[in-house]
Parts: sequence; C-alpha cells; structure tokens
Amino acid sequence: MGPVFPFPVSLPRSRGKLAYELHQQLRAAILDGRLPARSLLPATRKVAEALGVARNTVVTVYDLLVAEGYLIPRKGAKPQVAEFARRRTSKPPQASVGIDEPRFASVWRTPFMAPSPARVLPERNFRLGIPDHRHFPHDIWRRLMAQALRRSSREPFAYAPSQGVPALREAIAQHAAFARAVACTADDVIVTSGAQQAFDLIARLLVTPGQTKVAVEEPGYPPVRAAFAAAGALLVPLPVDDEGLCVDRLPDDVRIVSVTPSHQSPTGVAMSLRRRSALLEFARRHRAVVVEDDYDGEFRFGGRPLDALQTLDRDAAVFYVGTFSKSMFPSLRKGFVVAPAWARDGLVAVKHCADSHCDAVTQSALAAFIRDGHLARHVRRMRSIYAGRRGALLDGLRRELGPWLQPIPSEAGLHLAARIRDPALAPQIVPTVLRFAAGAESTADYAMTRDIAPAVAFGYGVIDADEITATLFDLRRALDKRTRAGRTGG
Amino acid sequence: MGPVFPFPVSLPRSRGKLAYELHQQLRAAILDGRLPARSLLPATRKVAEALGVARNTVVTVYDLLVAEGYLIPRKGAKPQVAEFARRRTSKPPQASVGIDEPRFASVWRTPFMAPSPARVLPERNFRLGIPDHRHFPHDIWRRLMAQALRRSSREPFAYAPSQGVPALREAIAQHAAFARAVACTADDVIVTSGAQQAFDLIARLLVTPGQTKVAVEEPGYPPVRAAFAAAGALLVPLPVDDEGLCVDRLPDDVRIVSVTPSHQSPTGVAMSLRRRSALLEFARRHRAVVVEDDYDGEFRFGGRPLDALQTLDRDAAVFYVGTFSKSMFPSLRKGFVVAPAWARDGLVAVKHCADSHCDAVTQSALAAFIRDGHLARHVRRMRSIYAGRRGALLDGLRRELGPWLQPIPSEAGLHLAARIRDPALAPQIVPTVLRFAAGAESTADYAMTRDIAPAVAFGYGVIDADEITATLFDLRRALDKRTRAGRTGG
Repeated sequence: MGPVFPFPVSLPRSRGKLAYELHQQLRAAILDGRLPARSLLPATRKVAEALGVARNTVVTVYDLLVAEGYLIPRKGAKPQVAEFARRRTSKPPQASVGIDEPRFASVWRTPFMAPSPARVLPERNFRLGIPDHRHFPHDIWRRLMAQALRRSSREPFAYAPSQGVPALREAIAQHAAFARAVACTADDVIVTSGAQQAFDLIARLLVTPGQTKVAVEEPGYPPVRAAFAAAGALLVPLPVDDEGLCVDRLPDDVRIVSVTPSHQSPTGVAMSLRRRSALLEFARRHRAVVVEDDYDGEFRFGGRPLDALQTLDRDAAVFYVGTFSKSMFPSLRKGFVVAPAWARDGLVAVKHCADSHCDAVTQSALAAFIRDGHLARHVRRMRSIYAGRRGALLDGLRRELGPWLQPIPSEAGLHLAARIRDPALAPQIVPTVLRFAAGAESTADYAMTRDIAPAVAFGYGVIDADEITATLFDLRRALDKRTRAGRTGG
Repeated sequence: MGPVFPFPVSLPRSRGKLAYELHQQLRAAILDGRLPARSLLPATRKVAEALGVARNTVVTVYDLLVAEGYLIPRKGAKPQVAEFARRRTSKPPQASVGIDEPRFASVWRTPFMAPSPARVLPERNFRLGIPDHRHFPHDIWRRLMAQALRRSSREPFAYAPSQGVPALREAIAQHAAFARAVACTADDVIVTSGAQQAFDLIARLLVTPGQTKVAVEEPGYPPVRAAFAAAGALLVPLPVDDEGLCVDRLPDDVRIVSVTPSHQSPTGVAMSLRRRSALLEFARRHRAVVVEDDYDGEFRFGGRPLDALQTLDRDAAVFYVGTFSKSMFPSLRKGFVVAPAWARDGLVAVKHCADSHCDAVTQSALAAFIRDGHLARHVRRMRSIYAGRRGALLDGLRRELGPWLQPIPSEAGLHLAARIRDPALAPQIVPTVLRFAAGAESTADYAMTRDIAPAVAFGYGVIDADEITATLFDLRRALDKRTRAGRTGG
C-alpha cells in the first residue's frame, strides 16, 4: 500500500497526542502547499488504516480543520482543501536590516536616533547623570510601594487620568514651588514617564513636521534633540558660552528654544540672569516657546540659585520639565511638565495618545514619598555627599591637571566639565582622560557640529571622593608622559 | 522723611526673616518695573535708617541682588538696576484655550484626540475592557513586587534597556507562544507601556506624515486610530462584517492595516481564516504591514482559536500587539509588540526616544508573575468566571431582548455586541439600552463615519451574572413600553 498522503506522516506513540500531531502536520502541509488548494483529502477510514490510528481520531482532526477553515466539508464526500494564500516556505523570514528600511518614516532612517550601545564600566565610575544607589532610602520606598499596592488592591481596576494621579500632581506642585520657586498648582502639572517623555510630548504637540524651527544648545543633551528631530523639527544648534545659550544669536523664526539653564548639559554653566531675561523677551516678541530642562537643579552647591525661567516668565511661554531620575533613580521613569495653561489640554491629549497614563501604583507611592518629606530629606543628604565629591574633583583638576584642563564654572548638578586649555592638544588629551576616567564623556559627543571647544565632563553621581582623587593622580602622570612625549615627538 | 523707595516696604517683626523679605520685595519691584532699569538704589545707610534695620542686612541684600544679576555694582557709588526684560504684571497669564491653539501641530488641532471625559458609573456596570479586581491574586502580585524592589535595591542605579528587561521579554515570548501560538523569541519582543504605546510607536516608525495610508476597522477602537492619525497617517475606514474586516475592499495603496482579528473591537466578530489569508496575501503583494491587536484574545469561550495572523505570516509583515491590561489590570501599563526582525531596531529607537524604557521593577515582577505560572492560572480562572457572565448575557439577550437585539457571533474577550434588528428603531432603542445598561456603548461611538449598522456592546468584565440578568429583565420592560409607545405614536 502506497502512502496515504503525498508526504510522510510520523505520529508519536503516546495516544493522548495523536490527534494533536496529525492536526499539526496536516495543517502545515495545507499551509505550505504539499496538500494543494482544491485537492481532496483521503477518506478517514483509509487514513486510519494507513497510520494505525482509530478512525475517530481522523474524523476529529478533519472536523477541526473544517472548523478552522482549512478544509471545505462536502456532504457525503471527501473534504477539499480550501483556497487561500499559502505559507511560502521557500522564502526565509526577512533578516534585520536596521534603521534604514525604506518603509520607515524618513526621520527614523538615521542611526542618530538609536540608543547608544551599553558601556561596560567599573561599578565606581565617572558616568554622567546616574545617582548613587548606596544612599537611597530603599526601605522607605519599599514600604510606600507596599502601601500603595495594598490601597490599590481594594479599588476597582480602572485607567488612571492621563494627566497624572491628583495626589502626585499636588505633591509635585508643592515640591517644585519649594525646591525651585516654580509657581504652579496641581492643575499645571502633567506627570510623564521621565523627562524624556516630557520632551517627546512637547515636541509632538508643538512641532509641525518640516516647518518648526527649534533652537538647541550646542553642545547639548542628545536625547532631547532626538525628540524634537523625531517630531520633524528643523534643529538650529546655537553655541553655549559661560553665560549659557547665546540668546542674541537666535534666528527670529525659531519657534521653540530648548535649554538647560540651571546646569547646562554637558558644560555645566548656569544661564545668567541677563540671558534669561533676553530669552524670555525673545519668546514674548516672537511668540516662541521655551522648554526649560531642570534635570539636576536640586543639587546646588553655590549660593542662592538664579530664578527658574518659569518663575520669571509672565507670558505663559515656558514649559518647565523636571525629573525624579537624578533626585531618586532613573529606572523609576517619573518626570513632569509644568505647562502654560493654553497648552495643558493639548499636552494631556498627546500623553493620552502616547500611552494613556503612567502606572498608578508608582505614582501614588511617589506622591507619599514627596508629601512625607522623604524626597527633600534625601536630596539634602545627597547634596552634601555630592558636594564632597565635587570638591575632590575640583581640587584634583586644579592640583593635578591644571596644565591641561580648566574647570568650567558651575554650581549645581551631578557632573562638572573642564575645557582642554590648548585645543591643539585635545586629540592627545581627551582620549587619555576618557581612558583613565571611565564613564567621563567628551562634550564633542554632545555636539551636532564640530565647532565646539574641546572639553570633558566628569560625573560624580556614583564615584567616591578618594577614587576621584586617586584617578586624577594617575591621569596626571599619564598626561605628563603623553604630552611630554607629544612635545618631544613634535 | 519721605519714603526711601518709590513703593511701601513692609518688613516682618521677626529678625531672622528681615533680609529674606527685603530681598523678595526689592526683586519683585525690579521685575515689575517699580524700580526701573538703570535707576540707582538708595544708599544702604539711608535704607537701614528708614526701615529700622541693621545696615549690614541691607548690604547683604544688595550683594545678593548683585550676585543674581538684578543690580549692577558701581565702585564707591550706589548700585544700579540692571537692564533686562521686566515682568509685565499688566497682562494676566493666558487662559486655557484648549486644543485648537495655533502653535499646536495641525494633527492636534482637533478634539478627536482628546481623552473622553470620565464617566460616573455604578461599581458593577457593563463597561468595556475593564477586568474584575475582585478575583486578581493581589497578594501574589504584592509579594513579587516586594521581591523585585528588594532585588533592585541591591543593584546600582541604571537606565534599563529600551527594548525591555531580558527576563520579561523571555517570559512574554513563552507566554505568547503558549497562549496564542505566536512564534517568537525574546529578541522579537519589545516591552511597551500598554498596547496604546505599541500602536503609537509602530505608527511613528512607519507613517510618513501626510502620505501613508492606514486602513482601520469601521467601527474600530478609537485610540488606535488616534495613534495613527497623530503620526500624520491618512486613515481609510473599511467596513467589518461577520467575517471581520472586508479585506477585498482594501485600496492597493494602503501601507498599514490595523485589525483586531481575535475579537473585533467593538463588534466582537473573529476574522475568518479566509480573510486572514487574504489579508496576508494583500500585505505580501503590496509590501504592506499588518498590525494585529490581540487585546483580549486570551479569554476564549469557543473551540480552538483561529491561528493568529502572526502565526500564519511568512513574509515578516505582521506586528503582533499584546497587553496585560485585560489579563491583569490596565493601570499596570504593560504591553508588548512581537515585531518582524527588520523593524526591531527601528522600534527600539522610537521607544528610546519616546520614554527611554518602561519602569524596571514592575517589569521584573511581571516576568516572575508569568514565569511562575500565575498569569496562566489567573487567565484560566477568569475565563470560567467571564464565561458564566457571557452566558447570562447571551441568555438574557435572547430571552428578554430578542425582538430588538440580535447578538453578534463572538467567541472571545470581555465584551459582546448585539445589533439592533430594525435599524429604523435604533434612535429609540439605543438610548434606552445605554440608560439601563450603564457603561454599555453604542458601536456608533467607535465609528469614523455614520455608515455602520446600529449595535450596542456590553462589557462583562466587572458585572456579575445575576446583575446582568436583572438589568436585561428591566430593560425588556422599558423597551416594550418605549417601542409600543413609538408604534402607537407613529
């Protein structure tokens, strides 16, 4: 007796799986064309005999394939294979072709947007913008999360408001008023999934693709640039000097200006009051909007901070963006926008479209963390710890690296930058610094153009003072050798 | 002696706050122009005498204002008010003008995108797509969250991978393979903030504003439409019949087809195998992409489910979108995409730009919830609970409402729809149904056009079987009266 199907069928010994296996194999054969469309299946009796299974098993499998639409039943006759597009096994699934796939919207057809590959760094390192986990009150946070989970388990499931949980907006408004003199109420606050989402939402709301010009700092924080570029903005990089963004160089047709006035990313300078006023005046005159990114302004080491742009603004031009990534931890993914009233409903609509809302339990726990004073206490404690590290960094830069590096004045945040005194030596100095000070970054990596003064930014979020001192001591000897060698060689 | 300043200064009695108050009042006066630019401040001695404070206090305040840039120091002379844009107190902050502000990108200048206002509903109601919190294993979830929090407190702070935590992607791949025969590995999975973010990311990656045509179901789930529209897509609404989307009516230039094949939202029909094949054939022929939204396909009440489009796809055309909003709870905000290999890096780049990554602790807890079998167990338990409610709903619709409503065949999910038998009576029947069955929705509210058969969708996620029965009984009497009255009146 020849085979009952035009392909081998191999069934398992275990009885329980016979029907399942036969179904899988027949379906696969229909899908890949071994059982062609409109062909007739052999009679159930014949199949049962040929395969040595109960006829009822075959009947069941045929019925299933009919129910699923793979077979067409025909009264009193053999069922027929249905007609539909077959799987084509000849063609393997398409391989990854990266970001330049022609189906992608044009803004994504550039590696510029892709996340940078993860770096392998020693646990204590100079990387920027990561706070220290060793001093966070994990026990308090766990307790507040447990409370929030318990509370939520007693309430019916629901989607939360897109703008954010009211208790958290209330707490953020008080926190922003207290810590940064940002005048707002809970109504003005929109909770976001980190500051990055805040930029992304603002960009999507305000940018008309291919038209809206957005001024960004040069050098500046690349992910903010990415958010505006992804929305289709035309980016206008503007230089930063020791007073912050060079506001007098703003083209009149710029509609949005994105700045880090408390602590410029990455140079660390504070925008002077004069520049702040000029920027607000520019916004007023041109009906432009200012995005104020205050990512680590809570950590102040100098005297009184300059007022936030939001505080000085009287024309509803400023979107103030804050985050808990530095004051708490980045994987929390919680940030916020204090938005002008005219933009609030719009921003909430974008948030709703983007991801409905932020997870509600974490929002409640965060509200309690702020309200009960844990955030303020933690920031105060960390400020003094970071101040010690910053002091060690400044001392070391002056004592050991004075001939090569000049610290850029800065009074806040989790990192400090230093310029290369002799730009001509930058090609030798910068790589040496980055090799010794793991995690430190060249400010050139924050620039769109090549037209910036060479500098290196050192983070002190996760490194201890003695490690800073030791690293800079070693670095000095390396630079001594390298630049002496360079001089001798030249 | 006349006033020392051209405005009254009122200082508190308590000595500790004198400098603070004087600083605040002088700064406010500078900002609002009562102390005009370039004017000279009175000598510190004079101010101290006039206000009855120590001269040193005044010196401190002047120094502070100089440091902040409000005053220009002049050697041996009175300080001068700096020149910069003043606060203009005359103009009140702009009031909320809603979504049609001209600065907004044009896609947002429509109320179509805004979240619908929250409805006040009784706790047990017919609303769609909300699961029941009374049967969720809250204790297990709390324990897994506590474990994840403890684990994370021992690790250095860091940004997590944009694609999602590896353990969760692994668990999702196994879950999707097991529950829905979706063939994938952890590499193919991208974790999103709910299914809504999945649609939003896909839309942003694939839609070129003003060019890309996207076919959507009519009626269909409005937030998915919003995501594509926000990305600038041209929406093509296509009718849905008892076999699902009318695939043969797809215009050739459609690049993306968004469907809910397991359980059409809102009609509840399953897409037939024939239509599934035709849709994949369309995608192959036109190099189009299919977005398969499987939002509640885990809850199956019929026989074997039809294969997912992703399972049938051999051309890397399908983006499979899943969510834990129905199988767990919506405020968790966790969903995922199983993406074709060619789109994966692109999609991760969009996620990175949108919000860096989803919060890491919840991702870890969710991974454990899936891996330890809690999700599968919970879905199994809920399936039998929902089956009972669905049975009561079908019984009630047939027994009580047969003359007016006809259930639409459906075998999955958390809701069931019924057509109005006589469309001419819909204007009387639909409002009556919605008034009695709180939370139920007219499918017309899911439509872009007015060209759909009138129907009502009833959710059974949060309502008990006996309440369903009682409501439909009451509804019958109301409809009886209304339509008899209508007939009499007509």
